[in-house]
Amino acid sequence: MDKAALFARLDAQEIETPSWGYADSGTRFGKFFQPNSARTLSEKLADAGQVHKYTGICPLVALHIPWDKPEDGNWDTIKDEAAGHGIRIGTINPNVFQDQCYKHGSFSNVEESVRRKAVDHHIECCEIAGKTGANGISLWYGDGTNYPGQGDFRARRKYFQDSLCEVYASLPADQRIILEYKFFEPAFYHTDVADWGQSLLFCQKMGDRAQVLVDTGHHAVGTNIEHIVATLLQEGRLGGFHFNNRKYADDDLTVGSINPYEIFLIFNELVAAEYDANDAIARECAQNVMYMFDQSHNLKDKIEATIQSTIFVQEMLAKALLVNREALQAARANNDIMLAEECLRDAYGTDVRALLAEWRENKGLASNPLLAFRESGYTAQVAEERTAKHGAVAGGGYQ
Amino acid sequence: MDKAALFARLDAQEIETPSWGYADSGTRFGKFFQPNSARTLSEKLADAGQVHKYTGICPLVALHIPWDKPEDGNWDTIKDEAAGHGIRIGTINPNVFQDQCYKHGSFSNVEESVRRKAVDHHIECCEIAGKTGANGISLWYGDGTNYPGQGDFRARRKYFQDSLCEVYASLPADQRIILEYKFFEPAFYHTDVADWGQSLLFCQKMGDRAQVLVDTGHHAVGTNIEHIVATLLQEGRLGGFHFNNRKYADDDLTVGSINPYEIFLIFNELVAAEYDANDAIARECAQNVMYMFDQSHNLKDKIEATIQSTIFVQEMLAKALLVNREALQAARANNDIMLAEECLRDAYGTDVRALLAEWRENKGLASNPLLAFRESGYTAQVAEERTAKHGAVAGGGYQ
Amino acid sequence: MDKAALFARLDAQEIETPSWGYADSGTRFGKFFQPNSARTLSEKLADAGQVHKYTGICPLVALHIPWDKPEDGNWDTIKDEAAGHGIRIGTINPNVFQDQCYKHGSFSNVEESVRRKAVDHHIECCEIAGKTGANGISLWYGDGTNYPGQGDFRARRKYFQDSLCEVYASLPADQRIILEYKFFEPAFYHTDVADWGQSLLFCQKMGDRAQVLVDTGHHAVGTNIEHIVATLLQEGRLGGFHFNNRKYADDDLTVGSINPYEIFLIFNELVAAEYDANDAIARECAQNVMYMFDQSHNLKDKIEATIQSTIFVQEMLAKALLVNREALQAARANNDIMLAEECLRDAYGTDVRALLAEWRENKGLASNPLLAFRESGYTAQVAEERTAKHGAVAGGGYQ
Amino acid sequence: MDKAALFARLDAQEIETPSWGYADSGTRFGKFFQPNSARTLSEKLADAGQVHKYTGICPLVALHIPWDKPEDGNWDTIKDEAAGHGIRIGTINPNVFQDQCYKHGSFSNVEESVRRKAVDHHIECCEIAGKTGANGISLWYGDGTNYPGQGDFRARRKYFQDSLCEVYASLPADQRIILEYKFFEPAFYHTDVADWGQSLLFCQKMGDRAQVLVDTGHHAVGTNIEHIVATLLQEGRLGGFHFNNRKYADDDLTVGSINPYEIFLIFNELVAAEYDANDAIARECAQNVMYMFDQSHNLKDKIEATIQSTIFVQEMLAKALLVNREALQAARANNDIMLAEECLRDAYGTDVRALLAEWRENKGLASNPLLAFRESGYTAQVAEERTAKHGAVAGGGYQ
Repeated sequence: MDKAALFARLDAQEIETPSWGYADSGTRFGKFFQPNSARTLSEKLADAGQVHKYTGICPLVALHIPWDKPEDGNWDTIKDEAAGHGIRIGTINPNVFQDQCYKHGSFSNVEESVRRKAVDHHIECCEIAGKTGANGISLWYGDGTNYPGQGDFRARRKYFQDSLCEVYASLPADQRIILEYKFFEPAFYHTDVADWGQSLLFCQKMGDRAQVLVDTGHHAVGTNIEHIVATLLQEGRLGGFHFNNRKYADDDLTVGSINPYEIFLIFNELVAAEYDANDAIARECAQNVMYMFDQSHNLKDKIEATIQSTIFVQEMLAKALLVNREALQAARANNDIMLAEECLRDAYGTDVRALLAEWRENKGLASNPLLAFRESGYTAQVAEERTAKHGAVAGGGYQ
Repeated sequence: MDKAALFARLDAQEIETPSWGYADSGTRFGKFFQPNSARTLSEKLADAGQVHKYTGICPLVALHIPWDKPEDGNWDTIKDEAAGHGIRIGTINPNVFQDQCYKHGSFSNVEESVRRKAVDHHIECCEIAGKTGANGISLWYGDGTNYPGQGDFRARRKYFQDSLCEVYASLPADQRIILEYKFFEPAFYHTDVADWGQSLLFCQKMGDRAQVLVDTGHHAVGTNIEHIVATLLQEGRLGGFHFNNRKYADDDLTVGSINPYEIFLIFNELVAAEYDANDAIARECAQNVMYMFDQSHNLKDKIEATIQSTIFVQEMLAKALLVNREALQAARANNDIMLAEECLRDAYGTDVRALLAEWRENKGLASNPLLAFRESGYTAQVAEERTAKHGAVAGGGYQ
Repeated sequence: MDKAALFARLDAQEIETPSWGYADSGTRFGKFFQPNSARTLSEKLADAGQVHKYTGICPLVALHIPWDKPEDGNWDTIKDEAAGHGIRIGTINPNVFQDQCYKHGSFSNVEESVRRKAVDHHIECCEIAGKTGANGISLWYGDGTNYPGQGDFRARRKYFQDSLCEVYASLPADQRIILEYKFFEPAFYHTDVADWGQSLLFCQKMGDRAQVLVDTGHHAVGTNIEHIVATLLQEGRLGGFHFNNRKYADDDLTVGSINPYEIFLIFNELVAAEYDANDAIARECAQNVMYMFDQSHNLKDKIEATIQSTIFVQEMLAKALLVNREALQAARANNDIMLAEECLRDAYGTDVRALLAEWRENKGLASNPLLAFRESGYTAQVAEERTAKHGAVAGGGYQ
Repeated sequence: MDKAALFARLDAQEIETPSWGYADSGTRFGKFFQPNSARTLSEKLADAGQVHKYTGICPLVALHIPWDKPEDGNWDTIKDEAAGHGIRIGTINPNVFQDQCYKHGSFSNVEESVRRKAVDHHIECCEIAGKTGANGISLWYGDGTNYPGQGDFRARRKYFQDSLCEVYASLPADQRIILEYKFFEPAFYHTDVADWGQSLLFCQKMGDRAQVLVDTGHHAVGTNIEHIVATLLQEGRLGGFHFNNRKYADDDLTVGSINPYEIFLIFNELVAAEYDANDAIARECAQNVMYMFDQSHNLKDKIEATIQSTIFVQEMLAKALLVNREALQAARANNDIMLAEECLRDAYGTDVRALLAEWRENKGLASNPLLAFRESGYTAQVAEERTAKHGAVAGGGYQ
């Protein structure tokens, strides 16, 4: 691929950042606080704007309901505020895992009243998606059980399917549902939407605008994610990604920090499909994938972590675009394992940093976004402002 | 469930044993030989007959083609020989992983001639299935790749689907295809039919008589297999089992040796579906599941290992039948996790050995099949006969 | 083993329950509250007393500092209060993972002042251990890093070793340090004390009264824990257990809920060593192992969960005592894998519930502790009292 | 590090290739044969010579006894033959897993006669190590059990320790024993030397010249290998590496094919120790580590796979040498996780291929060893010669 084509493709790249990625997060053992972390929606939008300002490819922000619901219910104000930071609303993310009523599940709950509450919350999210001009709603469920016997697997699946189909009927006509799966956590014996197979079955029941969301940390260790990606593309059912990285479980580390090659291999499938003249379903699907981060920046500065992740993902796209696809297909046709693999390694081994710096300079962006953001003084400034507004975060000593 | 009903259900239990389970097996580091192991189809049928003689619930034997193909191609003789041992043919298992032509795959091979050879072999197996009065053909594929870049995932899936659909068209009208999946091995980067989702998608494309086969050792560690079982039952797509146990990978240890409770939990789902008045699809599906072992008896005596496995599976069925389903459903309806779990633990904790000894005595079987077989002298006898026929197995010292 | 000897051994069994196991716990996604959960040390001691009252084998309670530190610093009062509930203090557990100052580690921190603070906290815990007549101090560290490059592995180990050795010097002369290891979490790239090898090396450096603590949920999936147990017994370095169960990560489910056979196999090693006339080191070590639970009762009632766990562990000890050790050793001497395994399966398959009911009745205990506790009305009573005292727990609806 | 220093370090790099890496290998499901594979020791030495000829850093070849034992027992001839190919003997590898007598273990066998045979074989290997001027003997054991109850863990450890100590006494005075560990396979329930802790304990018992060998594929998935490496360096007990890569189990893929960053992180620890002025034990240990491959080239051409692996490892060393260690230590001292990580990512992201091509040209080597070897025609030539000598490998069709 020549530089002009490559730059054109880079121009089209858009990544959504989640509003909750700018707030403090932690583990079940506690949270370590940062004075500059965002606590209000306005602060989250401002921080998301910083990421877009320095990277140029993060114009979308995901909202989490009810966390990001304005008190006055006026979404026009929020859209305007986002626009003021150069960004817009991406997906709407319902929350049916947090309230006490969901102790025994949301869509899988044996109590009809709880399922009703959960469905109604989703319908409200569909309305918000309409009002905010979002891309769609992005669904994740903690539903599952902790002990053998606790739940009736088939009854739960029936409840789930009925609930999802009712929500689907409320989806704005031009939007999508993307349904995430997760191997385990917070449920530790079984999870109702545990793998791509479970998610795909539900999507088949819902309809064409229901697609699977792949979170790169939500698989059993060793799972070949790029194979799942290719399969979903071929079926026209890949809706989006939540990028992050993991070494053990759903560690939610910044993407590329543990196994960067794996993310490259995922992009290799996406790019192959985008330019595949012979597979219209996969090609169209690939061209409409929604990309997002879902990471827990427990110790890293949140904006820095998001910028670092963005640059990494941009590098992986660039490297995947550099794969010599003719040589790759020729090697495969000859069962030449060595040359086929070397096609990928050559592209992955290429240092694309200078190329991306050039692309950024063409856009009027800083060539090194991470460094430029660090030097901007934003962190210290908002730490001061937010401490003044919200009070100091908990300090040292035994609390 | 009262004893009469329980015994009636036990009467109906049938487990298929694989012909290859009576032959020597090993690891990539080598095989340790046993003088009494079966080397011919006749010896395998005789050994399978022993297992049925002592357990009373193993009247079926699975054949592997071409390993078990008679030289004269006369299947009537084989059926008669099996009948002479009190058994009959269960499923036919094609082999497209062993020949040198399958170095780069069978149904996924880029070479049309190899795919043709593989499809033709399957069609031959369908014919054998018809001639032997088998239940169906049972399919497993080693197809996959060892290195990133080596294969075109989507092209391989297309080849796979087309091949499977062609095979399906040759299936005897009263028989089934059951399609196995496996997380990895012998391919170490990706496997074409890697999980239940991949298998189910292919079954959907083939037709109603294509169902998923669950091998209990073919999942990522930690996978909740009983949840998959319940899901496939609900979809009417659970075709059969390959029972074994594992601690690490596809270790193919005897079933129940590492985590016996897991097998109980699987039977709990099967029994729940068999007696579920409200889910006709799951009920009918459960009543037609085909049960088989697929184990590598590397160190244990093969017949003893198969008898031990059979007794274990019978015990797990008995325990699952003892679950108080009314109490279980009541506890679930109350979100009483503790009582729901205790329903399962009570049944699992019950010592059913005396009950099963009684059931066996009613049938004229030895109350302790393993001991009775040991005392029969069969092992020493066939060791002598087979050594005389085939020569001594390799002895000690550096070979 | 005859019944008298078996009952005598059961008489000697003591399990420690942790004070924090009676308080609400959750996941990083939130906590679901129970109105009867303990919030003060007094409530925790009362709840621990209930477990001992119904099971008869839980006379010890572990304290967590600073959570369980009395405001007035008067430990005599606490000892008396515990005694009033029929229990006494077991181990003292320092906490150096919670305070903001430990964001970048405790003993592994690059800042000397933080390491100092952590060591001083341990020394205080040694003093408390002396004052309360505890068994020793039980150490666990969340120390680790989330990203490659973040920490200097060797420098951190040096800091750790120096800190531990300083703490060891403050240990009461008749007490022990038991040092826990954990595969991962809350650190997601590396953990300083990640496995038994890391823990053992530190214990070797500390001295003879430093031993390894095995938490059954702190290993990579598939790890053979009973082999580690046997190894540590042989080296005289097994100090204690934290019992729980897991399916995926450190799920902290109630012990025996996922793989009960594994816990039986661990007890089989412990019992084998306790009665091993030929291995004095292992025998003495086994006779002094400290047993504790460390579970997160996120959804189950905490007292019920602890009683259920206690009964389970008692059953596993009873089953391990029933293993025919002469037959087992004979089978092993003959390389008779089948009979050796059957020795374990026979004992495990035995229903010991009637036997344990008899043992309980001899002691004047309820034959079914779980049921008896449920029927006692304690849960409703303290729910009312504690709600009155602390206010209602958060209710339904979006909070 | 400036280029001169970097090149000097690259000059000193030596990697040992295993003789068995040039022969056909496979899985338990069978082998796919290559006509050019080495079948005799002479062919293996010739192939190893090719790898060194094209890469310049593989002057050592590991031998496996008895596979590589000359019929006439004349090791001087072998040394000369190796020298003729520009190489010399590295380590001697005993084999006590293959013969039928080892069915129930080697050093762990309950039969004294088998342990004796195994010890004698090791003593013979020590003699061969002396005669061939090797670096030492490299030990790996398949010993373990497949079923609970099968073995007495502590008795086996005692046998193991006694055997190893006897072997250690026969080791040439200037040589080392390196003891490998493995998580599982070919044993599937427990493995006697299962992890670095087990190996280290045995090394402590043997003496100072006994060290641990790390095979990068022999851990539970997720294990932080670089942390183990740093720990062993600090203890002065890291003896050597077997490089390869894995996605699932011990897949023995070519190193760097699945997670190249992990190998970089291992080299980062090795380089850090080599140049650590403050840790003499780790520094000396790092400077004496023995590097080897242990891979199964089931489908790739064996020489090409070894060249590819060598180039990869050379690249990782070069990248690790490029890490700015002052900046890294400064970032760590400031708890600046982001900058510390970026130090590693900067080095890893650097394309060192041109640099290494220059280094090769300085040495008179082809700049692209893989391509140069491919173009040399060696493969076709030896395929013809070896087919003529040994006969054609098994062809297509059902065998």
